Amino acid sequence: MPINKTVSLSSGFLKLFLFSLLLLFKQIILANKKEHTSSLHEKPGVSQPEFISSSAVKQVQKFRKKQPSAQELIEGILSGKTSALSRAITLVESTNVNHLAKANEVITACLPHANKSIRIGITGVPGVGKSTFIESFGNHLTSLGKKVAVLAVDPSSTISHGSILGDKTRMEELVKDPNAFIRPSASGETLGGVARKTREAITLCEAAGFDTILIETVGVGQSETAVHGMVDFFLLLKISGAGDELQGIKRGIMEMADAIVINKADGDNIKKANLAKAEFNRALHLFPTKKSGWKPTTTTCSALTHEGIPEIWKTIEQYVEFAKTNHYFIENRKEQNQYWLLETINEQLKTNFYNHPEIQKLLDATKKAVRNGEFSPFAAAQLLLNIYHDYKK
Amino acid sequence: MPINKTVSLSSGFLKLFLFSLLLLFKQIILANKKEHTSSLHEKPGVSQPEFISSSAVKQVQKFRKKQPSAQELIEGILSGKTSALSRAITLVESTNVNHLAKANEVITACLPHANKSIRIGITGVPGVGKSTFIESFGNHLTSLGKKVAVLAVDPSSTISHGSILGDKTRMEELVKDPNAFIRPSASGETLGGVARKTREAITLCEAAGFDTILIETVGVGQSETAVHGMVDFFLLLKISGAGDELQGIKRGIMEMADAIVINKADGDNIKKANLAKAEFNRALHLFPTKKSGWKPTTTTCSALTHEGIPEIWKTIEQYVEFAKTNHYFIENRKEQNQYWLLETINEQLKTNFYNHPEIQKLLDATKKAVRNGEFSPFAAAQLLLNIYHDYKK
Repeated sequence: MPINKTVSLSSGFLKLFLFSLLLLFKQIILANKKEHTSSLHEKPGVSQPEFISSSAVKQVQKFRKKQPSAQELIEGILSGKTSALSRAITLVESTNVNHLAKANEVITACLPHANKSIRIGITGVPGVGKSTFIESFGNHLTSLGKKVAVLAVDPSSTISHGSILGDKTRMEELVKDPNAFIRPSASGETLGGVARKTREAITLCEAAGFDTILIETVGVGQSETAVHGMVDFFLLLKISGAGDELQGIKRGIMEMADAIVINKADGDNIKKANLAKAEFNRALHLFPTKKSGWKPTTTTCSALTHEGIPEIWKTIEQYVEFAKTNHYFIENRKEQNQYWLLETINEQLKTNFYNHPEIQKLLDATKKAVRNGEFSPFAAAQLLLNIYHDYKK
Repeated sequence: MPINKTVSLSSGFLKLFLFSLLLLFKQIILANKKEHTSSLHEKPGVSQPEFISSSAVKQVQKFRKKQPSAQELIEGILSGKTSALSRAITLVESTNVNHLAKANEVITACLPHANKSIRIGITGVPGVGKSTFIESFGNHLTSLGKKVAVLAVDPSSTISHGSILGDKTRMEELVKDPNAFIRPSASGETLGGVARKTREAITLCEAAGFDTILIETVGVGQSETAVHGMVDFFLLLKISGAGDELQGIKRGIMEMADAIVINKADGDNIKKANLAKAEFNRALHLFPTKKSGWKPTTTTCSALTHEGIPEIWKTIEQYVEFAKTNHYFIENRKEQNQYWLLETINEQLKTNFYNHPEIQKLLDATKKAVRNGEFSPFAAAQLLLNIYHDYKK
């Protein structure tokens, strides 16, 4: 037995020795390979030529700075850097699917730092003076020490390339104000897409320390409903007139308003504006009570003379106190979060169905038959749904 | 070779003979079996006892009459038999999936004979006097030679077992009128289901020759939107008061109305009713122009004294002429058909998603995280949709 032990021991040492030798060789081979890689497969001994100029290197480095990591963006936003904020919003707005994960990472990290602001929706038909109002109102807010972010929801900007907020010349002062951040409407094919991007931009702005978010929209489409679903306070901008200007406003907008502000109440217009104010006041009390319990107010203002602008902010402050006291403020935000969850799901389900090639083939003919009363809408719906589900299996 | 041929021939004849014999035996056996079957396995020669009484046979035949074929229902409806109409509506309302094909057959056959009526939606909060109004208005219509069908959309009737139109005692005269057909609200778990059934009942009533369809609904839920989507004219019933009664009315209802009728304008109430009329008139002109181009009217009436009832019908006649002249009438009906096609699809897509077992497992927790701002609504929606699609594959 002792002999056997010695044999097995010495055979063990031999194995260890051979293994060590193997490792040594491997390291030598690897070291050689590394050298090859670093010299771009050129023959060893030949030094790398200096064909990359130093200016080109600088340019590449500059470009790389334009694509910061998610972590860099997050740190930048949380330390209040508007450059990081801008880049993060661009990332969120990107239609490149590869950016989605990074965008979600930034959003998720910002969420705990968001939610500490007042979000105000501002709507009104074109010509009512929205940009001038926001300039005047925004300047008043920054003069009070507020940090103001101005965003927009305007799906039509896909065609007009940013019809609202695009022309920043109307906001001369606010654009230069270091405590203001102005961002034109995201572009996108659908309102749902634009709304998503704007809502995530709110999160980013809040995480960057902006405490007052103004969201502008035009009062002609479905976009006000979307904006109403992402703000705490909804302001309807109007001008005095023969009532004709009301016709441009979509149904139901007046019922959404927490305040109606009659703009351009200056010069000869003051009397007319006061009449309009009285008329809207009478009309408003015919509406059902709002869920918040808040009674909408009607005021006049002039974005030109700044008359009435401070009063609007006071009204909003009163609203916030009122809604925080009766817990509507926080409850409404929770409801809005849930609304966007379900809304996104429902929209996506519809998109998947209506974009399915089999449905696209049949939909127009089915619609036509149903429109003309040749086919029951319910029987036709069932037929299309059955086809869709059979193809999904 | 000739011998071989003879052998093979004679062997062929033998085979044929044996096969014929087999067939003969089989036929004899089968014939015997048949005799056994027809005598219910009793021994041959014993006659069938008369244990089925003739009265029982008559009862069975009567029962069979209760389940008429689709063709019988269609013929009955088209010849204006209310018994066939009632049965067809019961069939449409059935939740038994076996009835679906038959119901669809009846509906499809009735479609070319429908569409020739005026469909009027009537809404108002409980206490406004809807039943009394319909009794009075319906009697006026039949006195003009109209054939009136009264239907209802009230999803709450599932719980209350027909809260509206259930109590026909308020429509004493109309119930007895051979030119009136009254049918309480279909019951169903969802508004979508109730709406579908009512809309198909309209088709059946029209095919049965009813030229004026009144659809009642309560102005407190989503049901008015559904009714608004299936009628030509939408009438909002109100009573005069301090404005408090308005609060029971859902947002947006006033904007849907083609006419506001202030009911109970009798006795001491007349003055107050006229004041309310003036107030609503003022409010109505603040609303945006309707798609039809029609300017909503405000009138007073008393269902008790019949005062103002004929004027309401005249207003509706004016509307129909107006809307037929500008082609809105037919265009709106086509739009409504399409609306119900898409609405049914969208509702079903949602039902399929939210009832999926995997989604049901995750939805509550996801909602909670999103509500509390721990998770972006958009990222969460994407996650749930991915899970749903993976399970569908």
